[in-house]
Amino acid sequence: MNKDNNTNNELTSLKKLETKIVSGMRPTGALHLGHYFGVLKNWVEMQEKYKCYFFVADWHALTSEYENPKRIKTFVPELVKDWIASGLDPEKSVIYRQSDIKEIAELHLLLSMSTPVSWVERCPTYKEQQQQITGKDLATYGFLGYPVLMTADIIMFRSKLVPVGQDQLPHLELSREICRRFNNFYGEFFLEPEALLTKAAKCPGLDGRKMSKSYGNSIMLSESLSDVEPKIKGMLTDSKRIRRTDVGDPDTCNLFPYHELLSSQQEQTEIRQGCTSAALGCVDCKKILLKNLGAFLEPMQERRAKLNDKVLYEIIEAGNQKARIEAQKTMEQVRKLVGMN
Amino acid sequence: MNKDNNTNNELTSLKKLETKIVSGMRPTGALHLGHYFGVLKNWVEMQEKYKCYFFVADWHALTSEYENPKRIKTFVPELVKDWIASGLDPEKSVIYRQSDIKEIAELHLLLSMSTPVSWVERCPTYKEQQQQITGKDLATYGFLGYPVLMTADIIMFRSKLVPVGQDQLPHLELSREICRRFNNFYGEFFLEPEALLTKAAKCPGLDGRKMSKSYGNSIMLSESLSDVEPKIKGMLTDSKRIRRTDVGDPDTCNLFPYHELLSSQQEQTEIRQGCTSAALGCVDCKKILLKNLGAFLEPMQERRAKLNDKVLYEIIEAGNQKARIEAQKTMEQVRKLVGMN
Ligand code: SF4
Ligand code: SF4
Repeated sequence: MNKDNNTNNELTSLKKLETKIVSGMRPTGALHLGHYFGVLKNWVEMQEKYKCYFFVADWHALTSEYENPKRIKTFVPELVKDWIASGLDPEKSVIYRQSDIKEIAELHLLLSMSTPVSWVERCPTYKEQQQQITGKDLATYGFLGYPVLMTADIIMFRSKLVPVGQDQLPHLELSREICRRFNNFYGEFFLEPEALLTKAAKCPGLDGRKMSKSYGNSIMLSESLSDVEPKIKGMLTDSKRIRRTDVGDPDTCNLFPYHELLSSQQEQTEIRQGCTSAALGCVDCKKILLKNLGAFLEPMQERRAKLNDKVLYEIIEAGNQKARIEAQKTMEQVRKLVGMN
Repeated sequence: MNKDNNTNNELTSLKKLETKIVSGMRPTGALHLGHYFGVLKNWVEMQEKYKCYFFVADWHALTSEYENPKRIKTFVPELVKDWIASGLDPEKSVIYRQSDIKEIAELHLLLSMSTPVSWVERCPTYKEQQQQITGKDLATYGFLGYPVLMTADIIMFRSKLVPVGQDQLPHLELSREICRRFNNFYGEFFLEPEALLTKAAKCPGLDGRKMSKSYGNSIMLSESLSDVEPKIKGMLTDSKRIRRTDVGDPDTCNLFPYHELLSSQQEQTEIRQGCTSAALGCVDCKKILLKNLGAFLEPMQERRAKLNDKVLYEIIEAGNQKARIEAQKTMEQVRKLVGMN
């Protein structure tokens, strides 16, 4: 009986690990708390449940950075450093660089042949991004083809699930259509990727706006507590709480969202009570946050201290090799299906 | 003195061989006389003067054949067979299959990032072909990007010259612009390809229309003289020459264009005189052509007899390897330039 149970458990866990997930991030800048709570926290949890493929999306970065791409390169190890500091484990997940897997370029080219141009033209990002990102000419052939490249990324490893937020569902639907069309022409080979809906925890900037490096309202994952301390101390809290004896409202305070991310449920309840009854002052409230921020940042710093460019490139290269072997297997089949073997 | 002259000659011939030429053909059907006189005859001459790269354009074939690509594969060795039968020499030229050089897919992807979508949209072929080729949906992302892939083909081997007809000049100009834009962003690396204007000798079909397999008016390069004989004998000549004693006009006769391609200058003069004076009858005129067609087809048959699929795939694989080595060298540089090394 016991043995059987063990076998069952092993099977279940094998099955879980067989479910593949793929997700990537562009190497265009250092990551901050917003990236952690929006994406990385989910990734770290996923790697316990699934076989995960996390990639440095440097070809995608090129769609917006093609006029000055040298900075992409410097951010490649930085990005992986942020990932591993955040808890991604190269033993558990395959961490690789997109442009090191040439098979992705090949699959992209093959998919481009069967993808109607009207499909990519109607992709919501295409027009949106062009309007949002000013000062850059994004009307390139490659930018238009972003969904085709994204599809190649996803289906290359025959992953079943793609972690997406609600807003990205239309993109995934397009990838599913591109995949389906390929399967229709050449045989049911690729899994149609399904959405793994992730909830991105809301992490606003220090000033309440969206956290963004360009707004100067960020806490970077690479910062030490001593770097962060003055930022927290200087934060504006509930603007209607002028004197220490005034009651405050956590729901209109820039600080409280961080408690929601970093403090325990009990602390949150106590802070809410203390704030709304004026029992707790903002200075003390910030002290609690700093303690919890410290507990959050410290293990990151520790993991980060062990990483240098050499180690990071070794991690990437080891991941590349794993990814490449699988990509080669996939493409061998694909070439047969298309008749280009 | 003699030695110096030799050295000079060697240098000149080395220089010639350093000038690279690249050109490809889609594996979508067996070749006929029109292909020979339009393209292959030029190729055979070029290989004496330049370092030539001739490729089986199977990715390009996919732009129109993606719905049923299996036939592409069968035509790959057939195409190379027609080439070698026509006189291409794998010792002199690099003969390779496009889809075997993955670096081309990678370069295509990189070029796509810096190529404005408006450039490819305004490409004359895009709209023309869509109108001409009915029954096929050519409005795909890959078909739109045809000029980007063509540019990758050309510049990969840093070839200086591209053999084109007058009508293809706009395409080459687009490739030059794509290449220039890349060089502007990342450094003067690629040679801007220049047109080597080739004149395609006019080779109409047996019925005077354009020679095309689908019209049933072709002489295939694989045909023996005994296959061709009844076709020539059955040809309509000058329709106003009803009796043997009527004079004829070679300029309105379907046969004479073949004399212009296959018969000597002297024969042509004699035929013109004989025809216009009724001294020469059409039956005898056809006999002269058949003699010359035989002399043309015979060496093709001999070369063809030595070729089988195994030999052809060995030729392609040997060419692939040469092409791949050069493509890898190019991409090593390109990755450095773009900062994706
Ligand atoms: S006590 Fe805390 S939650 Fe309340 S206003 Fe001050 S900083 Fe904000
Ligand atoms: S003699 Fe020759 S060129 Fe003159 S009409 Fe007859 S076939 Fe044509």
